[in-house]
Amino acid sequence: MARAQTADFRSIALPDPLPLDSGRELADVQIAYETYGELNERRDNAIMVFHALTGDQFVASTHPMTGKPGWWERMVGPGKPVDTDRFHVICANVLGSCMGSTGPGSANAGGDRYAMNFPVITIRDMVRAQMRLLDALGIETLHAVVGGSMGGMQALSCAANFPERTQRVLAIATTARHSAQNIAFHEVGRQAIMADPDWRGGDYYGGEAPTKGLSVARMAAHITYLSEAGLTEKFGRRLQAKDGKPGAKSFGFDADFQVESYLRHQGIAFTDRFDANSYLYITRAMDYFDLAEEHGGRLADAFADASDTRFCLVSFDTDWLYTTADMREVVHALNAVAAPVSFVELSAPYGHDSFLLDVPALDRVVRGFIQ
Amino acid sequence: MARAQTADFRSIALPDPLPLDSGRELADVQIAYETYGELNERRDNAIMVFHALTGDQFVASTHPMTGKPGWWERMVGPGKPVDTDRFHVICANVLGSCMGSTGPGSANAGGDRYAMNFPVITIRDMVRAQMRLLDALGIETLHAVVGGSMGGMQALSCAANFPERTQRVLAIATTARHSAQNIAFHEVGRQAIMADPDWRGGDYYGGEAPTKGLSVARMAAHITYLSEAGLTEKFGRRLQAKDGKPGAKSFGFDADFQVESYLRHQGIAFTDRFDANSYLYITRAMDYFDLAEEHGGRLADAFADASDTRFCLVSFDTDWLYTTADMREVVHALNAVAAPVSFVELSAPYGHDSFLLDVPALDRVVRGFIQ
Repeated sequence: MARAQTADFRSIALPDPLPLDSGRELADVQIAYETYGELNERRDNAIMVFHALTGDQFVASTHPMTGKPGWWERMVGPGKPVDTDRFHVICANVLGSCMGSTGPGSANAGGDRYAMNFPVITIRDMVRAQMRLLDALGIETLHAVVGGSMGGMQALSCAANFPERTQRVLAIATTARHSAQNIAFHEVGRQAIMADPDWRGGDYYGGEAPTKGLSVARMAAHITYLSEAGLTEKFGRRLQAKDGKPGAKSFGFDADFQVESYLRHQGIAFTDRFDANSYLYITRAMDYFDLAEEHGGRLADAFADASDTRFCLVSFDTDWLYTTADMREVVHALNAVAAPVSFVELSAPYGHDSFLLDVPALDRVVRGFIQ
Repeated sequence: MARAQTADFRSIALPDPLPLDSGRELADVQIAYETYGELNERRDNAIMVFHALTGDQFVASTHPMTGKPGWWERMVGPGKPVDTDRFHVICANVLGSCMGSTGPGSANAGGDRYAMNFPVITIRDMVRAQMRLLDALGIETLHAVVGGSMGGMQALSCAANFPERTQRVLAIATTARHSAQNIAFHEVGRQAIMADPDWRGGDYYGGEAPTKGLSVARMAAHITYLSEAGLTEKFGRRLQAKDGKPGAKSFGFDADFQVESYLRHQGIAFTDRFDANSYLYITRAMDYFDLAEEHGGRLADAFADASDTRFCLVSFDTDWLYTTADMREVVHALNAVAAPVSFVELSAPYGHDSFLLDVPALDRVVRGFIQ
């Protein structure tokens, strides 16, 4: 069964239709969100955390469907680098996703699921929706916006398009522009979903979901989140133990290698918590992301009004999805507008996923910048 | 329709059953092959070219199904680096493939297609079959074996297992061991094929072939054949022109970006010429490839009997599939047995595919080593 769009997430209905980069507008937008820590009386201690492609609003609390801890509990919480004893942390499910915010799995005005009639959205549309959420919450200016990967794209987009809304921008393991290779990997995933006959042009709600296609898409993407060295260290060519016996080649097509079994599990587990159409829309938004193009072709112009914003940019040496070179382009653009920026490339073995994992140096960078 | 296994390829039936690494043996093996240039009277001027995963025996002559030039015409032919005016070049379709050599699409003794009853094979099995072909052709010793990518694996396997059969080994853009990341990408492809309902457990011959799954598999693999910089140079974020109009975002799921269109084309065109089950079996053989493991765990031991063989190894600086570091491991192993080896890392922008493309430095290396 396609997973149900449950209505029991905390959310706010935006009062006005949301204008979109496509020229369309979206009415009756719900934005689901979670908050952690108290908003102070001056309403100036709020930090917005933007989540990545398959993330959600449960940054520091248990995911209601998987029962797993929040996806960034190591970073966000009482006494943590993003300290909820001091800050009011807001994390919203992005527009287009499937954890309570309006997306292709939501009902349109006529009561039917949008499916592929949902408008194609952009990273800027996601940020626009979240600024509307801030309006609804009565928060004018953020202490900081923080995000890794697609969350970092939103952080940069926020700085470019809503520079007056935040004092600090912390963007981790991200890029100002999706590259041809980035687009190519996403296209493989989309084609895998669309090749699944259960996808049925997107109209699968209430029936079988295209779980096989979505699983293959997740597997392909997952490889890009890990470094070659990390995969070798974690799995190498080790074989799966079977029925209590040590691993041996099956000379068949079972998952002989641990890395195969791991990837299959990653793919299948993902389909329990994510909607395939949301995957299509959000990857499309990421592929469309090119902050320079949005601002006349020159990246520095994107940050023309952000010269009073403080920036902190972090890359990881083993991240081959969004590389240090990608990040340096952002640094150069910020330098060109004389925005205060600190940039660090951290060494960590986990590839792109380093921003989510145990990298104490990242904790220190985040704590130092946020305070 | 699943493509027919046509019988009009030039081939030889091996007289005896072929023993396989799995412990099984395969009877009635056909090996399809092409030759170029004359075999001399001493029968000592033969060079065997091994092809890559999706290659075939048509190294220097027109592919009979696609009508395209041979896949290495720039390297093999009269006056070319592998000079057919001087050498007798043999190129055989590998065991398990689908261009006339016995594979999962072939009929078994009962007249049915093997499909998934075909035994799982290894790179060494492929080489073993080709050594049997040499026996049938009355050629004892080769002037050289040459191959790139999986062809290079066969060349190294030949050196390790049949060192008396060749005087020279030229291995390009290859590795002695499939890494966890290599396996992971192949596993994505296999899962994409197996997720296609037209795959039907491999029994699709005579019906619809799993072209959608095979196409996704090819797309995922194809990304690994190209460098990030090469993709950026070739496509960047350029948009497809449509109906004579310059490219614009469709805000839809058409192939907006040129790289999407290119990949889709690569995927679909591949399904016209390749059998999905062969793709499963050959990728499995590559994943099983670990020359050290085959020889007690120490790579140098694989080459213990090859110390009189001359080796030339070539890697490309932008190849992230089989890297220079992978090749260095082979060099170190050959050094340990005091085999004569020359090694060069060439600079070329095309990633793994560089071995097939216009890299004049490679031509010079090949010509110099072969003569």
